[in-house]
Amino acid sequence: PDEALVRVTLAGICRTDLEILRGYMGFAGVPGHEFTGVVEACPDPAWVGRRVVGEINCACGRCPVCLAGRPRHCPHRTVLGIQGRDGAFAQYLTLPAANLHAVPEALSDADAVFVEPLAAALEILEQVEITASDRVVVVGDGKLGLLVVQVLRERAGEVALVGRHQRNLSLARGLGIAAMLPDRAGDLAGADVVVDCSGTVSGWELGRGLVRARGRLVLKSTFASPVPVDLASLVVDEVTVVGSRCGPFGPALHALAAGKVAVAPLVEAEYPLDRGAEALEHAARPGSLKVLLRP
Amino acid sequence: PDEALVRVTLAGICRTDLEILRGYMGFAGVPGHEFTGVVEACPDPAWVGRRVVGEINCACGRCPVCLAGRPRHCPHRTVLGIQGRDGAFAQYLTLPAANLHAVPEALSDADAVFVEPLAAALEILEQVEITASDRVVVVGDGKLGLLVVQVLRERAGEVALVGRHQRNLSLARGLGIAAMLPDRAGDLAGADVVVDCSGTVSGWELGRGLVRARGRLVLKSTFASPVPVDLASLVVDEVTVVGSRCGPFGPALHALAAGKVAVAPLVEAEYPLDRGAEALEHAARPGSLKVLLRP
Repeated sequence: PDEALVRVTLAGICRTDLEILRGYMGFAGVPGHEFTGVVEACPDPAWVGRRVVGEINCACGRCPVCLAGRPRHCPHRTVLGIQGRDGAFAQYLTLPAANLHAVPEALSDADAVFVEPLAAALEILEQVEITASDRVVVVGDGKLGLLVVQVLRERAGEVALVGRHQRNLSLARGLGIAAMLPDRAGDLAGADVVVDCSGTVSGWELGRGLVRARGRLVLKSTFASPVPVDLASLVVDEVTVVGSRCGPFGPALHALAAGKVAVAPLVEAEYPLDRGAEALEHAARPGSLKVLLRP
Repeated sequence: PDEALVRVTLAGICRTDLEILRGYMGFAGVPGHEFTGVVEACPDPAWVGRRVVGEINCACGRCPVCLAGRPRHCPHRTVLGIQGRDGAFAQYLTLPAANLHAVPEALSDADAVFVEPLAAALEILEQVEITASDRVVVVGDGKLGLLVVQVLRERAGEVALVGRHQRNLSLARGLGIAAMLPDRAGDLAGADVVVDCSGTVSGWELGRGLVRARGRLVLKSTFASPVPVDLASLVVDEVTVVGSRCGPFGPALHALAAGKVAVAPLVEAEYPLDRGAEALEHAARPGSLKVLLRP
């Protein structure tokens, strides 16, 4: 009723979509939460015809959590393509008008698909103080890791990427970022901040080993199942572990428009929506970068 | 050579000592790290004859970690009664003079034995910002939990204690703190900060369930073995987990001298050192409070 109807022009496949297909979140419905679209109908007519992206968490706006200023954590929320709300792998979707952000002319549809994951990368800066004296290591050279290194190098003194996929490591090096395989990562030990973008047990363990005493270990990727964690060592080394999820769309649009983050090299393939199953299979290949779906 | 020789007048048994006896840290030597003593010999003669407590981490003072201002995390450190250095369950111990703090007249030997664990409780305030708008829950009603609630109520808007031992819960209530069994803790959900002082899997799970999205979960107790942790839920709820170990002695002495923390009610028993085995057995009883050893 008070929602905008958006015609999806392009959607992106995220690792979370693949997890959802394997049962994560127990979601039944249309997946997909990264998109660019055009507003076809809206209670506020000013939106109609505009090219938009949309924040994926739909809060109630009335509960204590919303009123405390944390709507992305509203316990009554629906989440586009993840929880209680059909998503972007479709011709149309709906979102509250309050969730929409206009896409500037200068950005292509494919650029704008990256606003959602880039916002998630920027969320790290909202949660963790990173300064020019900090040495940061990002574990996981997938599409999220490649966004995170680009965001963090704007703040940190040094940023290095550790991953398992030569092609992706080369891509990072092409962007001017030190990138290496795990067996070369020993020299990175003692990092002030480690960001896990792997969502794997081995990535967790690698990151845990690289962060210094009193350092911060940011979890930016979900994990498919519980991980055995040596909590005593977190206590002895006074490590802080920070879970990090969705972030602010405004700064993400700004960073893209300012050309601070390269996203074009992260696009691996584009499929028409009716070849969606094939596209998901492609996206699930180890080391795969962004696979787009065009309705 | 450049260390002070301290005659131990009183020592306290901590849960870590019991873990060490079960093999934690692989320590072989004299355990014990909570003590009050008198300096018998010291390179700096001003210390001789003074009543002291002592910081337990002995740093090299020269490595990058020490020079970065984190001597308690020096990778070359020895730790009194825990790592590479005989401890306080003995007639004498040695510590670098730099580790010593004079005990004010007003404090008894038994009071001063609590400086080390109280400093550990105060470490929370060094690591986590707690304000009058915060609702805090402490899980675990042992001696450490009973110190932590007293420290945190000086800062937080509300503090509640959850534990399994009626006697200890009553003791907390006597100090003016809301205290309850786990099955009554449901109303505490949504806490801004939860501090685990249980070191148990069930305590971890209880605390995890009580902390709000974007809240902070402080681990103040070591855990005997790895705990299966749902890292994905930490990501989704953007929870921060903070490992917390030893703290500053100065503020602890100050808080004791100012009468801000009651420690006398936490003493359960005192044994002569030659009945140490019996004392350790006593300290290992579920819900046991502070057991002292007098050499």
